[in-house]
Amino acid sequence: MTTPAIDRAQHERLANAIRSLAMDGVEQAKSGHPGLPMGAADVATVLFTRILKYDAAEPRWPDRDRFVLSAGHGSMLIYALLYLTGTPGMELDDLKKFRQLESKTPGHPENFMTAGVETTTGPLGQGLATAVGMAMAERMLAAEFGRKLVDHKTYVLASDGDLMEGISQEAIALAGHQKLNKLIVLWDDNGISIDGPLSISDSVDQLARFKACGWKAERVDGHDPDAIEAAVRRAQKSNKPTLIACKTVIGFGAPKKAGTSKAHGEPLGAEELAAAKKALGITGGPFEVAADVLKAWRGFGATGFAERKDWNTRLAALSERKRGEFERRLNHAVPAKLAKTLVAHKKALAANPVTVATRKASELALDVIVPVMPELVSGSADLTPSNNTRAKGFEDFTPKTPKGRYVRYGIREHGMAAAMNGITLHGGFRTAGGTFLVFADYARPSMRLAALMGLPVIYVMTHDSIGLGEDGPTHQPVEQIASLRAMPNMRVLRPADAIETAEAWQIALERTDGPTVLALSRQNLAPVRTDGTATNRSAKGAYELLAAEGGKAQVSLFASGSEVEIAVAARKLLADKGMRARVVSVPSLEALLEQDEATRAAIIGDAPIKIAVEAAVRFGWDGVIGTDGGFVGMSSFGASGPYKEVYKHFGITPEAVVEAAIKRHNG
Amino acid sequence: MTTPAIDRAQHERLANAIRSLAMDGVEQAKSGHPGLPMGAADVATVLFTRILKYDAAEPRWPDRDRFVLSAGHGSMLIYALLYLTGTPGMELDDLKKFRQLESKTPGHPENFMTAGVETTTGPLGQGLATAVGMAMAERMLAAEFGRKLVDHKTYVLASDGDLMEGISQEAIALAGHQKLNKLIVLWDDNGISIDGPLSISDSVDQLARFKACGWKAERVDGHDPDAIEAAVRRAQKSNKPTLIACKTVIGFGAPKKAGTSKAHGEPLGAEELAAAKKALGITGGPFEVAADVLKAWRGFGATGFAERKDWNTRLAALSERKRGEFERRLNHAVPAKLAKTLVAHKKALAANPVTVATRKASELALDVIVPVMPELVSGSADLTPSNNTRAKGFEDFTPKTPKGRYVRYGIREHGMAAAMNGITLHGGFRTAGGTFLVFADYARPSMRLAALMGLPVIYVMTHDSIGLGEDGPTHQPVEQIASLRAMPNMRVLRPADAIETAEAWQIALERTDGPTVLALSRQNLAPVRTDGTATNRSAKGAYELLAAEGGKAQVSLFASGSEVEIAVAARKLLADKGMRARVVSVPSLEALLEQDEATRAAIIGDAPIKIAVEAAVRFGWDGVIGTDGGFVGMSSFGASGPYKEVYKHFGITPEAVVEAAIKRHNG
Repeated sequence: MTTPAIDRAQHERLANAIRSLAMDGVEQAKSGHPGLPMGAADVATVLFTRILKYDAAEPRWPDRDRFVLSAGHGSMLIYALLYLTGTPGMELDDLKKFRQLESKTPGHPENFMTAGVETTTGPLGQGLATAVGMAMAERMLAAEFGRKLVDHKTYVLASDGDLMEGISQEAIALAGHQKLNKLIVLWDDNGISIDGPLSISDSVDQLARFKACGWKAERVDGHDPDAIEAAVRRAQKSNKPTLIACKTVIGFGAPKKAGTSKAHGEPLGAEELAAAKKALGITGGPFEVAADVLKAWRGFGATGFAERKDWNTRLAALSERKRGEFERRLNHAVPAKLAKTLVAHKKALAANPVTVATRKASELALDVIVPVMPELVSGSADLTPSNNTRAKGFEDFTPKTPKGRYVRYGIREHGMAAAMNGITLHGGFRTAGGTFLVFADYARPSMRLAALMGLPVIYVMTHDSIGLGEDGPTHQPVEQIASLRAMPNMRVLRPADAIETAEAWQIALERTDGPTVLALSRQNLAPVRTDGTATNRSAKGAYELLAAEGGKAQVSLFASGSEVEIAVAARKLLADKGMRARVVSVPSLEALLEQDEATRAAIIGDAPIKIAVEAAVRFGWDGVIGTDGGFVGMSSFGASGPYKEVYKHFGITPEAVVEAAIKRHNG
Repeated sequence: MTTPAIDRAQHERLANAIRSLAMDGVEQAKSGHPGLPMGAADVATVLFTRILKYDAAEPRWPDRDRFVLSAGHGSMLIYALLYLTGTPGMELDDLKKFRQLESKTPGHPENFMTAGVETTTGPLGQGLATAVGMAMAERMLAAEFGRKLVDHKTYVLASDGDLMEGISQEAIALAGHQKLNKLIVLWDDNGISIDGPLSISDSVDQLARFKACGWKAERVDGHDPDAIEAAVRRAQKSNKPTLIACKTVIGFGAPKKAGTSKAHGEPLGAEELAAAKKALGITGGPFEVAADVLKAWRGFGATGFAERKDWNTRLAALSERKRGEFERRLNHAVPAKLAKTLVAHKKALAANPVTVATRKASELALDVIVPVMPELVSGSADLTPSNNTRAKGFEDFTPKTPKGRYVRYGIREHGMAAAMNGITLHGGFRTAGGTFLVFADYARPSMRLAALMGLPVIYVMTHDSIGLGEDGPTHQPVEQIASLRAMPNMRVLRPADAIETAEAWQIALERTDGPTVLALSRQNLAPVRTDGTATNRSAKGAYELLAAEGGKAQVSLFASGSEVEIAVAARKLLADKGMRARVVSVPSLEALLEQDEATRAAIIGDAPIKIAVEAAVRFGWDGVIGTDGGFVGMSSFGASGPYKEVYKHFGITPEAVVEAAIKRHNG
């Protein structure tokens, strides 16, 4: 955008409008964080009046610059900005409802509550790491659709806490390695944290650290608008991502609390608030913004209108086919061919059953998915040969090959998961990323945000049980499956063979409102399915794989993934003993539990004996088998050894299943 | 120790013995990681022949230098060293059982399987971050008991992966801030990761990064023993922690695979193995170590004997009281006074019931615990005023106040949890550390290691539900309680009032074989207990708080923490409607489920209607209430708003409990 000259006095009135609204919002809510909005108001004002490409009237314009408030606790900053710039739907009344139920102004910014909020933030470090993904997606999409449609930058406002969290290291190292020069982080360097001066817990030279990670970094006075602007302009020309440390005073303007942790996370109180307004020269009552100031702000909110109009013209000039594809991609619409492709793949597998690990089956599925889904960005946290995530046709994404769709995330599970959120939020891409299932623990905070935001990212998590064998208990997930099932809106799929793996991929890709974990085996699994049905039998979470023979079932055996073949073998052993058992494959326990009562009851069945088999903890299975059901699985951490021996050691065998059934039959 | 001169040829024979055993061990196991032991053999040999203070005969000598193999996948390195130096219990036969069930040589080093292994490693970054805690504990213990008893260093061998993980940033920032000059990290800088050359995913200048975090850092040739030794000697004199980047060749000696990712994680294969041995001048069959080499190694293993003897003399010279206290502390024995103190505290609370948040109740408990438990190290990840972890009598632990027992961990939950593991492993201290419960997700990998290793660390996790209100769903745990309950050996306690909080602290502190999460409320809770009984009623996980009145119970109401008062209120409402209900307080669901069947059944009772109330997901509760039980709680993420409104919004109220009971009564 072109920058109208803004003198210091005008700038201060604009910035003070943010401060004023932030103070009033927090005071009215009787809770919240005035310190950051007051301290960072100058930085934000420079961004929104001089730097950002945006049209407040259309916060979803695809080619807008992204602004991520990583320091989400300072949410009143973004709410004030959205109001001041005239974003539709953000009225003064919304600011007055700060931190109230169902308001557009929740305690931390939630992208699903508020237009103009790019991503949910609050858990520290996430915004910064998510922005790295946004900047990656911008480069990828530009490489594919051209700079006429895709040419924007990603700005982050980060706090000390964002930079202390370990995820920031993963994110900045990844950004530096990828030379994401359109990523510009403004650090609200106020030297204060909740416990007091930052110096009681930190001595890091952040500029040097960022430089060590391949960033440009400089320091400015965070209350000098021209200095901030000049630094951003320099950053825009850099061939590296940039950190601008903006030295600020937390709670700027509050006579007694500014510069102290008292300004951070609680209302200023009536007296201090009044004194702050006086000191800042703010007149008028609570939530009042002088008409000329509001008018000026609204003008800045609209300066991107012409640019957006031009962009729309360029979009309209595209061929219908190209425009359609661009829009499909931005809308995360699944390609029409996907379902057919996967059904054909299932039929091929039914015709030629393969005994493979489900991680390999996942690669086979990817091999057919990739050609029909150009938006799929895959990757791994340095476990490519183990996760089988680099299917045919993938090329590495590097600064020199921005069309590459395979990301070498490095040994950075957390940074990977956050970047996947950012790639997805940006639009234009779907993402899949691999690690070992046990290391879901490293990525969990970002996975939770994907679930909360409803982002359809896919985690390819292999080596999903003690079946990984020799690497031992640190690498053997036993509680991760349960812990992920417990997370709202997270879908966990643990397929039993190649056909179920294809169905799992279909479910994951057709899901557009939440993330999916694919829990995949290291070890080979014999096929349990030989039907090439078009129906996705895994879709309800479970289905009867094998009915009882010769009469009503006396036993229902439930199993997921690699243990389905154990249930199948147990069924046969039981038949030899004259007991009729059915086998229910449960690729997704929580999906089964979410079915309506009738569906669930029909699948679970009414056999008097219910046994579940899963090489993981029982936690959660009582919802299927009841408190008196039998469970053959883990109750402790695993052990190092060849996997077949480990299974025997922990008693996860067909014989143990039979024993559990017979005990209940006789007892 | 004094350093006998070791010439290059002798050094190489010593180092090649490690390489040889590592190759053979991996080959025999048909799995494992030869690359690191071969590449880092020179570094390790320098440490174990020239640097470390240790007596192989007594790997538990409290004043030994610690050696942490953070790159746990290179486990054959430590196993070979333990054998070569003559650590009791590590025989050649054990090396031959590498990666076999129940061997002392599991895939990754497990401190509970193998004497001489300081900490379980394998999940990357953990060893380094744990070592930071060890170094902190050394300084703390030395400040208390003097340098005559406590004067050792902590050495870490770390890999590229350790340094890429975000936790490394938290750990090194903490170590730099605390100026832990006795911490020396040797980085096996081999430039290779699983996906290939490190350059495909990383460009960080690690030396610059460590320097930015307050470390001394230098680079040496990792195959030049004298250069390595000289660098370590310089590090020993530094007033900062030190990183020594040791440039090595992964799989050093393997003619074809050295320097490539093929050397990393799989057996070399017979041909390459033979060629490597030939190239290195190693003769003899598999697992054969030349007699003179073994003898030399055993000599190095014993050089610390005299020093240990002297130390024992110094220990024996202490007063019986001081020696007893030192030994009690090292053994994690709970002070005799603790139980009495907490019972007295309970009696006082019973006499003067207080309505407080359980986080405040936790502070009240700490106020009485601290004076009788000088070994308790508390701290918070920058939420001290929220977690209430800085009770009376705590002083900050800083370089200038090493006797301080309160650690300002900064906004580093993961680093905090790992450091707590290290402090506990070192001996002499118990640890408690605070953050919000939702941020357990950030710390989870280290918490899992505490559970796996059986370390009695205590997590003070406040703001334990939607009851935190305005901060909204990113800060409101709904699935964390379930996800932690699912973890083997993790105890989760969610007390309902001040008396239960005192009981929770007693359970946590008296537990010496595993970690405990204290899930504590932000909001005030009215007392539900007014008995000052000496019995710890929370010990079995649950107990009948209120019996049914006027006959056999028709309804059992189960609740934990802040929802117990809701269950109590519902019981009264049900009584008004003529229904008899009892209330079972369940501070620990998983402890209840672990009771023997009779105990469990007695507590759960046989009322036909079972309803559980918890402001969290149902996952796991079916084990108590069965599939047909009623659950009043959460099934989605939370929302921002004043907490009483949030509770109503999600229908977690006495009225909802009554409705669920009546529905079942009528249905």
